[in-house]
Amino acid sequence: MGVTVVGSVGLDSVETPYGKAELELGGAAVYFSLSASFFTDVNLIGVVGEDFPEIFINILQSREINLEGLQRLPGRTFRWRGRYHKDMNNRDTLDTQLNVFENFKPIISATASLEPYLFLANIHPALQLDVLKHTYPNFIGMDTMNLWINTTPDLLQEVLSRVNMLFINDSEAKELSGENNIKKASLSILASGPEALIVKKGEHGCILFLDDGDHFALPAFLLEDVIDPTGAGDSFAGGVMGYVAYRDRYDVQTLKEALVVGTVMASFACESFGPNKLINISMADIRDRCEKFIQQTQLESYPLLPENDK
Amino acid sequence: MGVTVVGSVGLDSVETPYGKAELELGGAAVYFSLSASFFTDVNLIGVVGEDFPEIFINILQSREINLEGLQRLPGRTFRWRGRYHKDMNNRDTLDTQLNVFENFKPIISATASLEPYLFLANIHPALQLDVLKHTYPNFIGMDTMNLWINTTPDLLQEVLSRVNMLFINDSEAKELSGENNIKKASLSILASGPEALIVKKGEHGCILFLDDGDHFALPAFLLEDVIDPTGAGDSFAGGVMGYVAYRDRYDVQTLKEALVVGTVMASFACESFGPNKLINISMADIRDRCEKFIQQTQLESYPLLPENDK
Repeated sequence: MGVTVVGSVGLDSVETPYGKAELELGGAAVYFSLSASFFTDVNLIGVVGEDFPEIFINILQSREINLEGLQRLPGRTFRWRGRYHKDMNNRDTLDTQLNVFENFKPIISATASLEPYLFLANIHPALQLDVLKHTYPNFIGMDTMNLWINTTPDLLQEVLSRVNMLFINDSEAKELSGENNIKKASLSILASGPEALIVKKGEHGCILFLDDGDHFALPAFLLEDVIDPTGAGDSFAGGVMGYVAYRDRYDVQTLKEALVVGTVMASFACESFGPNKLINISMADIRDRCEKFIQQTQLESYPLLPENDK
Repeated sequence: MGVTVVGSVGLDSVETPYGKAELELGGAAVYFSLSASFFTDVNLIGVVGEDFPEIFINILQSREINLEGLQRLPGRTFRWRGRYHKDMNNRDTLDTQLNVFENFKPIISATASLEPYLFLANIHPALQLDVLKHTYPNFIGMDTMNLWINTTPDLLQEVLSRVNMLFINDSEAKELSGENNIKKASLSILASGPEALIVKKGEHGCILFLDDGDHFALPAFLLEDVIDPTGAGDSFAGGVMGYVAYRDRYDVQTLKEALVVGTVMASFACESFGPNKLINISMADIRDRCEKFIQQTQLESYPLLPENDK
């Protein structure tokens, strides 16, 4: 079963304590697609300008990503420039040029519209709603950001009420709900629509919240060298949605397994500038890291407590 | 098997978004002792002044903590005043009065000196070294803080080289090692002596690092209401050391189980001002929360990945 993703394709310029990259392949839909492509067929819906290098098209094609929905329009590609500091959990956006992305109108082929899995990456909620009108998925994941939380809250609520799972940063979950405690924030968001919510906490891992009030938490995969965290959240979502589509199941147990896959894919994304590491791994690397992560987070035995109070 | 703890006993005044408490029972050795007392015999070595309320003595006695080593001296008890903000991971110290704690000379009874487990709470490294001269434990845990990292680094290194396990905050681990990545920081600290290191990350959980390069990470127990996190780190250490002493083992598997117990005890400490919640729980509450925590962090099944690369 395949997944369709709608979102940004861009050229990123990034500076981190490890160095910098100029006009690197980037965008939420790119990281999502590359990550998900290890597990399932991917249709990428997006737009680039005349300046988008052919080599980046080749990279996406090398992972057999369906690019029928990737329009090339006159003008320049979406560009983002950012800087990470010693604390890699925070970044400064230095410049954002929407360019051809400003008037992006998704074109969705019959194949893409009929995929049972859909991911609405971080784009204007009006566009997300428009995509929902032209697709027929069984299971929908979405992302958003503080910009839409603040400027188009009503539209965002409408999208939320129609999706199965929201991927969101911890700070954005707090903003969206107005709650400062992450559990309260999540319960409040779940009350507004989705059945599941994944709170992304960067180097501190992730928490899956379910609308029955339960949750499941995992640490992140610990890296000695975080070269560039750009795209880690989208690679995480790509791993989760890609695994769910591959298994063609979205029960709670499958979602928990998918968190492991998402965590591992996000860790690879952090190990190079741009998606260079992501495109140079194999299923064997993914399997090895999943096993390592399980050893590093899963107990072999549980505490044996005293029978009674002392 | 019992544990001896040497550290502060104090009167805490704390303000959090949930309210405030004045001259509440506090101090690292108090939280540690109360927490550990559910699992093992505890000897508390510390000092209080003439103003220390008898009711607080009664509380410690109600948990059968051995107070032979708790001196009462002329003068006032150690006092700390702090304030937590919306982000409960950070706090401002508004006032610290060492009082009788300034010239604290631990008095260690034969019983306390012969206990196989010893915890050196956060006190001057010279005092920690002095305690090591007068005790005969098999397994030693310790805590420290940025003050000693900055002012008495050589003495601190000497203590570190003589203990089995260090408990430390993530920011302090970075300061102590001069490394900004937590894995690199931990490996560097382990190279200087201890066999194990537990990095405490507050609401983001904890990581056990071992001197063979392996590590094991757990999220924190997620609370909807963090009333007052004061003492959570010491309650965590009390749970870990108390469990290790109860099992009388300190192999890696036991240490991992102990992390669960520490996590659960820390969560109880956060649910009231002072140690009020900690002293009102039973072993049944601890067992329930351990089980809940395991459900919330441990997978029932692992990802089934595709056999080959797509």
